[in-house]
Amino acid sequence: MPSLSLDPTQGSLIQQVMHAIRQAIAGHQLAPGQRLPSVRQLATTLGISTFTVADSYSRLVQQGVILARRGDGYYVARTPLAPPMAPPPVPDARWLTDHRITPGPEVVQPGCGWLPNQWYPTQILQRALRQQGRDTDGGIAYGHSAGWQPLRQHLWQHHEALGIPVDPQGVLLTQGASQALALVVQSELRAGDTVLVDDPGYCNLIALLQHAGMRVIGVPWTAQGPDCTALAEQLHLARPKAFFTNPRQHNPTGASYSAATAFRVLQLTAQHHCLIVEDDVSAALTQSATPTLAALAGLEHIIYIGSFAKALAPGLRVGYLLASAERTDRLLRYKVMNAIASSELAERLVLRMLKDPDTPKEQQRLRDRLLRAGERWQQGLERIRWQSFCPPQGGLFSWVRLPAPHQDALSLSEAALAEGLLLAPGSQFRVDAPPTPWLRCNLAYSHQPLLDFLQGWARRQEGA
Amino acid sequence: MPSLSLDPTQGSLIQQVMHAIRQAIAGHQLAPGQRLPSVRQLATTLGISTFTVADSYSRLVQQGVILARRGDGYYVARTPLAPPMAPPPVPDARWLTDHRITPGPEVVQPGCGWLPNQWYPTQILQRALRQQGRDTDGGIAYGHSAGWQPLRQHLWQHHEALGIPVDPQGVLLTQGASQALALVVQSELRAGDTVLVDDPGYCNLIALLQHAGMRVIGVPWTAQGPDCTALAEQLHLARPKAFFTNPRQHNPTGASYSAATAFRVLQLTAQHHCLIVEDDVSAALTQSATPTLAALAGLEHIIYIGSFAKALAPGLRVGYLLASAERTDRLLRYKVMNAIASSELAERLVLRMLKDPDTPKEQQRLRDRLLRAGERWQQGLERIRWQSFCPPQGGLFSWVRLPAPHQDALSLSEAALAEGLLLAPGSQFRVDAPPTPWLRCNLAYSHQPLLDFLQGWARRQEGA
Repeated sequence: MPSLSLDPTQGSLIQQVMHAIRQAIAGHQLAPGQRLPSVRQLATTLGISTFTVADSYSRLVQQGVILARRGDGYYVARTPLAPPMAPPPVPDARWLTDHRITPGPEVVQPGCGWLPNQWYPTQILQRALRQQGRDTDGGIAYGHSAGWQPLRQHLWQHHEALGIPVDPQGVLLTQGASQALALVVQSELRAGDTVLVDDPGYCNLIALLQHAGMRVIGVPWTAQGPDCTALAEQLHLARPKAFFTNPRQHNPTGASYSAATAFRVLQLTAQHHCLIVEDDVSAALTQSATPTLAALAGLEHIIYIGSFAKALAPGLRVGYLLASAERTDRLLRYKVMNAIASSELAERLVLRMLKDPDTPKEQQRLRDRLLRAGERWQQGLERIRWQSFCPPQGGLFSWVRLPAPHQDALSLSEAALAEGLLLAPGSQFRVDAPPTPWLRCNLAYSHQPLLDFLQGWARRQEGA
Repeated sequence: MPSLSLDPTQGSLIQQVMHAIRQAIAGHQLAPGQRLPSVRQLATTLGISTFTVADSYSRLVQQGVILARRGDGYYVARTPLAPPMAPPPVPDARWLTDHRITPGPEVVQPGCGWLPNQWYPTQILQRALRQQGRDTDGGIAYGHSAGWQPLRQHLWQHHEALGIPVDPQGVLLTQGASQALALVVQSELRAGDTVLVDDPGYCNLIALLQHAGMRVIGVPWTAQGPDCTALAEQLHLARPKAFFTNPRQHNPTGASYSAATAFRVLQLTAQHHCLIVEDDVSAALTQSATPTLAALAGLEHIIYIGSFAKALAPGLRVGYLLASAERTDRLLRYKVMNAIASSELAERLVLRMLKDPDTPKEQQRLRDRLLRAGERWQQGLERIRWQSFCPPQGGLFSWVRLPAPHQDALSLSEAALAEGLLLAPGSQFRVDAPPTPWLRCNLAYSHQPLLDFLQGWARRQEGA
């Protein structure tokens, strides 16, 4: 057994134990495949509780550094020095998404696109699981390829009440909004087609479109939505097949379409027979009563995409799209080809969660919490004299500009990573990722330490 | 309220009520949006139990014919005359897949690719749900994009024990085997590439490859696996990038590679640097000890695809692939682009099910049940003097040939549908769907009534 010693500069006791084991592996005191000391043994040696050791081991198992063998013990993984995905020198879009919530317990992630785990209504999910566990009906076999009928019906009625004239056959459940976007690309577009996206816009969508062989053109985004003069020009010159846009609580800026922009965008795209793909995944985080494009203009030239991932339960991977019955039928074909069906069990759990009496007030609490976080963040930015694209009005994101003369948020992001802050430099959200002085900040993670870091970084740059 | 009357020729009382309501809608006695009589009211009028009416209503809701409004009552759907997907005159591959388990309670589906609901271990899933419902850890937030580490570890160890040398970073969890296939297409191939498939082979795979712009060539399938002379020729002439094959309990024939075929296929593909994509989704139904191709030749030129859908819980949509660490890393990128992550909750439920003490014997019971069904089916075919491609040896499928001179199973399938039997004509499993005299029969649904139908059909043909 190697001699492990704790280094108090490494954080909590759990983190110190994890660090010591990682160091022992890196320094070859622990070889691949070698058995680790038992939990009790190590606790005694280090004079700490078995709980702390057990927790450290289980986190290392989660990270793939060590392996647990049932009834046997813990072993060093065969390739422990190549963790699943090591951070690249520059956090690109892929790394950001791959590394989601906890690349390590040390990293705070104002760059990510989701809420901290404890903000989601876990108790409501647990309740739904227990109810489902007492119900012998459904969930184990394939469901209908279009998705579970009662959830489709719920969505149909919910969106009708919001003014979207949906046909009952026009609701398709998907594996998150991501699958909805991927199906639209497969069913509605062909390689070589030109498509428009918000610039900046959703990073995974840009990657998806480019991989599918589309010519992707960005429409400059303003604090009131797309720049309509630029949009008109692109519609005229490039004859795009579709415009993928995110009108409410826009990712990455947090801004929303004004009523006038919505009207103009609908008018222009209709003139040019350009399909609108309306990404409204943050609807549940939206406080204002701004209508969706689909409510204004119907579903003839619009595909509307929604999700339960932003506010309810990303882990269930349930999203949906609304479209004309005819278009939905075509999209369904691709869903079958790619997945046979989505998970009826997950769809049943989502409907149970939606119908839980506590859900409305939990969701309202979440919206209020983000609204307050946005206000505090905006005040903080003003104190350190940085600027945001627009003051947050609920939703997840704030788009922050580096002070002049800085033109690229990448080097800032690298410096941040070294200090345990994972940021999202703006280039990730632009076609072909050109340097930009912007940064996407997730309001649920944007607190005083981030402000301190930004201020300190700017001062060091001036000093340098 | 319309006068509804029951027609005893329509089957059970529940089916009679459903039929009466459908007829009233079709005959315009019940208009779209109109409220239906309450359950109690209709039960009294018809002199039947409220249970029967409630059950009929709930099935009609599932089918989208009527809608339930909470605390209010039942209404005719707005487009009840266009049910989600009406059967086309000829059941093509899409219709088969879309309509899966219950297009209507009346149809028996020897053409489908899954087990009857009650064959799956529902109690084990219910137990897993209740356990998960008491565990406040995990499932609500995004999981790791590669999938939940403990299930990946389980798969790694399971396949290592079966002789597949997997790297711990070489396991990727997916949304069923379908997503694994779709990711391989996106990551490993480009439009215009030539690929080989088993002929006959898996219908959704052929559609997926063709839609992605591949040149798809079928390699003739024998009762010992692919015809190696034809394979050698195609490898030489067409220079394919990949060969998608299903060596054990092949879909649609139920045959498996012989040891000699496996050796020869590995030798030939290695010579021509052709990637093998080994579809082994029926592994859990496999009685024999035939090794997988991946166990024989490792994962350098093989991607191995597995699933929990055939025997454990299709509704959870959990599948996986094994590949070299480097290839898995590339595939992961496409998974993130298409889905961000799979459902950690579903992955946790699968691992709980796998670890349930009742699972091994339940799975063995299922294999035995299919084996016995296969023996009975083969005897039945011999009695009516029809032939199968090979005697079933476990697994789900039997590939049955129409007696001479019939050359196309399509008209048989049409006649079957009219009698409430959904069959799978062999053309669905061939590139470009040429007529074939073969029929895929799912052993879990292939009983005496199907034999009677086949025999009766053949007699009527002779008589005609």
